[in-house]
Amino acid sequence: MRTSIAATPAANPAASGKADAAWIERFDTPVSAPHPDHAPLAGLRFAAKDNIDVAGVPTTAACPEFAYVPDAHATVIARLLGAGAALAGKTNLDQFACGLNGTRSPYGAVPNAFDPAYVSGGSSSGSAYAVATGAVDFALGTDTAGSGRVPAGLNNIVGLKPSKGLISAHGVFPAAQSVDCVSILARTVAMAVRVLEAAAGHDPQDPYSRALPLARTPLPAAFRFGVPAEPEFFGDDLARRAFDDAVAALEALGGRAVPIDYAPLAEAAALLYDSALVAERYAAVRPFFDRAPGAVIEPVRSILAAGSRYSAADVFDAQHTLQALAQRATAMWQDIDVLCVPTAPTHCTIAAMLADPVVRNRELGHYTNFVNLLDYAALSVPASLRPDGLPFGITLIGQAGSDWQLADLGQRFHHASGLTLGATGAPLPAPVGIAALAPSPATHLPLAVVGAHLSGMPLNGQLTERGATLAEATTTAPRYRLHALPGTTPPKPGLRRVDAAEEAGAAIAVEVWQVPLAAVGSFLALVPAPLALGSIELADGRWVHGFVCEGHALQGAPDVSAHGGWRAYITSLSAA
Amino acid sequence: MRTSIAATPAANPAASGKADAAWIERFDTPVSAPHPDHAPLAGLRFAAKDNIDVAGVPTTAACPEFAYVPDAHATVIARLLGAGAALAGKTNLDQFACGLNGTRSPYGAVPNAFDPAYVSGGSSSGSAYAVATGAVDFALGTDTAGSGRVPAGLNNIVGLKPSKGLISAHGVFPAAQSVDCVSILARTVAMAVRVLEAAAGHDPQDPYSRALPLARTPLPAAFRFGVPAEPEFFGDDLARRAFDDAVAALEALGGRAVPIDYAPLAEAAALLYDSALVAERYAAVRPFFDRAPGAVIEPVRSILAAGSRYSAADVFDAQHTLQALAQRATAMWQDIDVLCVPTAPTHCTIAAMLADPVVRNRELGHYTNFVNLLDYAALSVPASLRPDGLPFGITLIGQAGSDWQLADLGQRFHHASGLTLGATGAPLPAPVGIAALAPSPATHLPLAVVGAHLSGMPLNGQLTERGATLAEATTTAPRYRLHALPGTTPPKPGLRRVDAAEEAGAAIAVEVWQVPLAAVGSFLALVPAPLALGSIELADGRWVHGFVCEGHALQGAPDVSAHGGWRAYITSLSAA
Repeated sequence: MRTSIAATPAANPAASGKADAAWIERFDTPVSAPHPDHAPLAGLRFAAKDNIDVAGVPTTAACPEFAYVPDAHATVIARLLGAGAALAGKTNLDQFACGLNGTRSPYGAVPNAFDPAYVSGGSSSGSAYAVATGAVDFALGTDTAGSGRVPAGLNNIVGLKPSKGLISAHGVFPAAQSVDCVSILARTVAMAVRVLEAAAGHDPQDPYSRALPLARTPLPAAFRFGVPAEPEFFGDDLARRAFDDAVAALEALGGRAVPIDYAPLAEAAALLYDSALVAERYAAVRPFFDRAPGAVIEPVRSILAAGSRYSAADVFDAQHTLQALAQRATAMWQDIDVLCVPTAPTHCTIAAMLADPVVRNRELGHYTNFVNLLDYAALSVPASLRPDGLPFGITLIGQAGSDWQLADLGQRFHHASGLTLGATGAPLPAPVGIAALAPSPATHLPLAVVGAHLSGMPLNGQLTERGATLAEATTTAPRYRLHALPGTTPPKPGLRRVDAAEEAGAAIAVEVWQVPLAAVGSFLALVPAPLALGSIELADGRWVHGFVCEGHALQGAPDVSAHGGWRAYITSLSAA
Repeated sequence: MRTSIAATPAANPAASGKADAAWIERFDTPVSAPHPDHAPLAGLRFAAKDNIDVAGVPTTAACPEFAYVPDAHATVIARLLGAGAALAGKTNLDQFACGLNGTRSPYGAVPNAFDPAYVSGGSSSGSAYAVATGAVDFALGTDTAGSGRVPAGLNNIVGLKPSKGLISAHGVFPAAQSVDCVSILARTVAMAVRVLEAAAGHDPQDPYSRALPLARTPLPAAFRFGVPAEPEFFGDDLARRAFDDAVAALEALGGRAVPIDYAPLAEAAALLYDSALVAERYAAVRPFFDRAPGAVIEPVRSILAAGSRYSAADVFDAQHTLQALAQRATAMWQDIDVLCVPTAPTHCTIAAMLADPVVRNRELGHYTNFVNLLDYAALSVPASLRPDGLPFGITLIGQAGSDWQLADLGQRFHHASGLTLGATGAPLPAPVGIAALAPSPATHLPLAVVGAHLSGMPLNGQLTERGATLAEATTTAPRYRLHALPGTTPPKPGLRRVDAAEEAGAAIAVEVWQVPLAAVGSFLALVPAPLALGSIELADGRWVHGFVCEGHALQGAPDVSAHGGWRAYITSLSAA
């Protein structure tokens, strides 16, 4: 049912072609799981980096001698399958997720989706390539030093590096366990957030999982964004100009650039590989590495070996230094609402990377290494295509729990860029209200209203007096009919979902309100038969709760769908 | 101006007598700093453990060869001096704060304040002794494995181990820096909280300092308190019975005992000394210890040496294990509101401790070692005197930020115990509203009202409609006169502070309300001349903001102080 994994890299068909190097194993039939019809990710296909366990499929971490066959899915895989997504295969990576460039794999170097002479970036190289080329709708990566962001930036896609502990890493083979984050690669911010919504959740099986309250308010309209006072591009003037343009674009969105002192961030970044902190990578593979160091490719082998040579006291020295830097960096957040850096300062050819793998790799991580160490959230967003045709991306960074704020701003930035999707050339779909997309189940329920509860309509006060707020005006999927219910006061409609095979549906105007969970009960108490609070499919495929209607009451009720919505219908009555 | 520190322990007068072993250096004149007249700790004397820097005074950490003379106060010392407290001296400790028993010092073993044959507990041994005997009003300790709690429990005083990072440790010589907490020893919970209020605050100079929001709501009236399912007392039946009595006393306060699985807590506790985590202690003294290991006394020397032998990867293994245990322990908080353990499971004579210092010390830490590792707050409170005359204490433990909740419950427990203060025999003063004592400056302002704003009086609605809540009914210090202001509608009083040398003052009934900070402005807008919002001294010496009156309006206004308060005066009018 699936293409078997090669016993050795040389025999692996994935290594035979440049593009195929993105995949370590591509299933003939995607792996799926039972899920409700209206599951939030139903119909989506995804790929998973091959350091994430899929039951019965070898996890190689791009080290064939190390591979093991897990008997259970990683928590994140199980959650996504349960949310309706189908897993298309496992993707290539820098071995043991140790690298930011995509060349450190016996399965081959993953090419950049825009120019195969260039590196894809890594370590989530295959996942980024698969998303950029449209092979899947989204992919899972992991991100310790920047592995979920660098390949996104280099391939014109979105890389969402969630706050630490938001997505369970149970069943993910660790790079540096206390710093690792499962990350999401997608072509749009909205898709990344949809996936995050399905993937996130406290998992007691992951020691570092946490139930983190997320900031729900967008950044201020006049937001302040930090930029490095003296950004470094290693001589790449195209990148420098692209970053200047991105800063201008953020200013056009209402932002004000604030130069920040990059020193504590750079010093923290350096600790990841240049201090005893690197020993966490060695600790992850110690028994295997001590037994078979030759099975590990260079320069990964040297990095792990360096980690084996530090003492315990060295770790505490490094951790205390890191904590002092974190304390210094904290002051920055008094002056800025968000930090903006280039995702990567430059591009690099595969040849140049292989010629000087440590130095070139370090350059790619210039703007990423500090983020997880300092417990920040990050979102890499496409910014532009440079004159040489290579992508340039920026990363928005916020404190832990700022994930939705970053997504809200990131989507606005992405949609203002004029870019197309990844390397597919397809246009960006319409933006989606991030707040509505990713409500906190703990505090609010998004509720689609169709009739008398719409803004300005007679029953709207039932929402506002409960503290509900309007999140989004949109339409249903074109699968509904709207009927005027006879004899209702005030006049109310009934929404009816149609069977597409039998009847043409219409897209009906709705508003999505965020209702405080504690207020839903008293709101429901006011909803009379035949109306009910059920679930409604929106234009972009999302399902939210909302007003539906019992069928008996719709029989004989006039179909007013041609008006496009209840407000237009009511207006037409007064006009008549 | 102060008793000099001895050049060598043998020559130190502090070592000459058992009681004097509590002090490493006792100043002839307490150290103080300029402070406002109404400073919150004015008039109080305190002692500081000798691992806390006082400018110009050697910090020995109970290792004379290691001593250095700091040129600046530790942040916590500076804050307490600025709050009006005077520093009486530096106290003895287990060397490098490595121990829980009080015998590990070249300055002598600190005796128990109730029986000099027994250990004081440590490592904040001298601080506990000085507080228990009444030599000072409070003392600073430090707490890594339980050093702020064990000596409190063994000496019938309160040991407040704040949430990590609440009190700056800048200028405190570390034991294990990422786990260390500055702690407070006092004879009452209220005093400990007063000190915490003055001492706490984010300090960028301390890498581990944090601005932690504290839970402000008391525990539920029907609170659930966890107790170890199978508590261990090492054969001490008096301790076992004392703990049973303490559980019954908590139940009498409305609590319900819930047996909890102590295994993850015990496993976490074991990591502190029996894993690579102990290397953090070695890291703190590495250059000195490597140079002069012979200057360190046993068993501290062996403990530090053990820490020097672990590898970096061992640390990460231990930290991952700890994190997994923390995750397991987290589940406990779904079933309980607070955890209650014996502070120490037994007492130990100095002779027995010296005979088997590692095993006996480990017993004393049976209920303390896990707390800081798991980022919990703790409060040790006296529970009873056992039939043998030795004290028994319990420790209330909550998640980070629960400090005030623990104090609120702890004070109720302490006042229900019938105990006297420390080893002084003095009675417990009246309890104090913990919420009023330690308001969050970030959210509420405690405001004393005197007249028409009292509960049930005509203007009380100006408070309640702003979300203000009544925190406490008390009186002013006996330093005031209350006058009926003529011609006010509704009738209002004016409060006048007297010069004690010239005029007898009275204690006037007041209510302290917690007013949301955001509402204070609109409240003030309603306050007419001659009234004003100033500051008022309460019966227990605290100062809060409250209603005062311009002097001109008080001249000729009838003095109604004899009624004791405005409500009684108004009632007397209707009765007349």
